Amino acid sequence: MSPIPTADPAVLAALVAVNQKAAFNRWAGFQVRRAAPGSVELYLPWREELGQYSGFLHAGLIGALIDTACGFAASTLSGPVLASQFAVRCLAPAQGTAFIAKGRVVKAGRRQVFAAADLYGEKPGTAELRLCATGDAVLVPVG
Amino acid sequence: MSPIPTADPAVLAALVAVNQKAAFNRWAGFQVRRAAPGSVELYLPWREELGQYSGFLHAGLIGALIDTACGFAASTLSGPVLASQFAVRCLAPAQGTAFIAKGRVVKAGRRQVFAAADLYGEKPGTAELRLCATGDAVLVPVG
Amino acid sequence: MSPIPTADPAVLAALVAVNQKAAFNRWAGFQVRRAAPGSVELYLPWREELGQYSGFLHAGLIGALIDTACGFAASTLSGPVLASQFAVRCLAPAQGTAFIAKGRVVKAGRRQVFAAADLYGEKPGTAELRLCATGDAVLVPVG
Amino acid sequence: MSPIPTADPAVLAALVAVNQKAAFNRWAGFQVRRAAPGSVELYLPWREELGQYSGFLHAGLIGALIDTACGFAASTLSGPVLASQFAVRCLAPAQGTAFIAKGRVVKAGRRQVFAAADLYGEKPGTAELRLCATGDAVLVPVG
Repeated sequence: MSPIPTADPAVLAALVAVNQKAAFNRWAGFQVRRAAPGSVELYLPWREELGQYSGFLHAGLIGALIDTACGFAASTLSGPVLASQFAVRCLAPAQGTAFIAKGRVVKAGRRQVFAAADLYGEKPGTAELRLCATGDAVLVPVG
Repeated sequence: MSPIPTADPAVLAALVAVNQKAAFNRWAGFQVRRAAPGSVELYLPWREELGQYSGFLHAGLIGALIDTACGFAASTLSGPVLASQFAVRCLAPAQGTAFIAKGRVVKAGRRQVFAAADLYGEKPGTAELRLCATGDAVLVPVG
Repeated sequence: MSPIPTADPAVLAALVAVNQKAAFNRWAGFQVRRAAPGSVELYLPWREELGQYSGFLHAGLIGALIDTACGFAASTLSGPVLASQFAVRCLAPAQGTAFIAKGRVVKAGRRQVFAAADLYGEKPGTAELRLCATGDAVLVPVG
Repeated sequence: MSPIPTADPAVLAALVAVNQKAAFNRWAGFQVRRAAPGSVELYLPWREELGQYSGFLHAGLIGALIDTACGFAASTLSGPVLASQFAVRCLAPAQGTAFIAKGRVVKAGRRQVFAAADLYGEKPGTAELRLCATGDAVLVPVG
């Protein structure tokens, strides 16, 4: 994955505000860490309530992070968007003390925006990130 | 979608127990309403905490219901499974006083199970259901 | 899958004409067998040139049939469309003396059409059909 | 996308041989240009027979190139594989004097291999490549 472009404070502030408007994002604890035109980074500290039956991050949260990272990245270029389709590949058990989702725009068209995202788990006691899921979304500008 | 086959009390009881073991399912309020070999029906009453920024059901919850309905349907035939991939098509804004996810097995293989699910919103004050999303999953038996 | 609605000769004639305009469809031998508003049935007789390395129908042809069945079904309701995304689940080896793809519209919106298709192989010497793949597509009207 | 790792002549020779065994690959004209553990590059010169109704590369060929690039990349690490699911995002009209598909393994597990691919069209009279599709596949080792 390409590095996150130079962060843009105005872009970041706009996404932080949108993130705060979503009740589920507030409950889950999504944080918008970095943002630039076409890319975004989300952060989610782990807690037990986010787990599935064997204690890993629930697929619903994996999907929520992938979809939100794609949608936020798209909105930096295309304004408000709605996801019409998203897909998630679960590469490894989603474990970690926190999770980082990196979203990027692949192609921003007038009628559709294609975006992709990778989800990493932070290994306990280290700065090491482990790729646990990848995904993509097709989004429609609604502005 | 085919009708749900004749419900099986033992199958239902097993899924109710698994559902209770998942912390996120308990928080969100997922209920297993019906189950039979190869199919399952989930129910989720709406509340504000489940919403995205404009007040519809969050894509993360849509994905969680689709993925859980696929996984539970798969487990009725193949025992414990893990999702390796899932996809969601958002057909209409996910609105309703409650949501119903109907999952079914499309093909149960030895190494992979293919399942699909539809998500409906209950229209306020009526028994009418409105299709708001469809999805599918590839699952791997882990028993 | 729902039964194909009552066939419509004008709808069928229009799709037969479009099918003839696509050079690859002519080479492969795609036939439009049935069509009605929102649904379509394609037929492809097997021959060796359509095979992958172990002699089953090539994934490219499976995708082509799924995508074409989705696109043709969409076009019966929404006019000319382009696929922006399609996905294929390969449930079983694609074998048969011929293949039948049944496409249907799931939701026809103004900006996007969601369609799905199933692919069956005809068992040699019988009228029996075996489901070998399912798929879906998101299409954009371009009229 | 990461650069193709150092090419490996033995890996390349094995894929060239598999490619020649697939009747459809021979007809279409797929060429294996580069290969290394975990990655592969395919080349397909354009000709009219490969087109859809408006003269662009047919979605079936787009899917075939994406699926083959994913499968060949997977086989460099995991031996013979079968695709159980693949998805294609069509970002731009697939036009060019030739097409290049670059496939790479995202995660090679024991039971499933996740791979992704990008498809580029060569602009006439230039060395310029234009990204026209991306996709991914879940593959199952069958060795």
